Amino acid sequence: MSTTTEYRVTGMTCGHCEAAVREEVGGVAGVQDLTVSAETGSLVVTGSDIDDTAVIAAVTEAGYQAAQA
Amino acid sequence: MSTTTEYRVTGMTCGHCEAAVREEVGGVAGVQDLTVSAETGSLVVTGSDIDDTAVIAAVTEAGYQAAQA
Repeated sequence: MSTTTEYRVTGMTCGHCEAAVREEVGGVAGVQDLTVSAETGSLVVTGSDIDDTAVIAAVTEAGYQAAQA
Repeated sequence: MSTTTEYRVTGMTCGHCEAAVREEVGGVAGVQDLTVSAETGSLVVTGSDIDDTAVIAAVTEAGYQAAQA
């Protein structure tokens, strides 16, 4: 079953930041789709059996901070 | 003979932006060294026989605006 979870990401300022988050979070197991906005700080992840901790760790790896919204 | 020229760049917000400018301007003929700062908007280019227009075009290609300081 596919679920959608929103996270708040702080620290993104531009499209390059969005791309960095997209690349890292896109590699998390189970992620099928995601949208990220530097302007709103929203990260919406869709997939199955996704580990929230792994998503947050991927955002950290990209250089930003995330928390579940 | 090596010369150093400073440019003002607007629109950079983060290290990714600096990297994009660094990559494009680094490819301009004659450029030997450069420093770029999103915080101050300064781009300092050192090299020989550098075409100012080519530097400004490279910054535009990276997605920002530049003018000689």
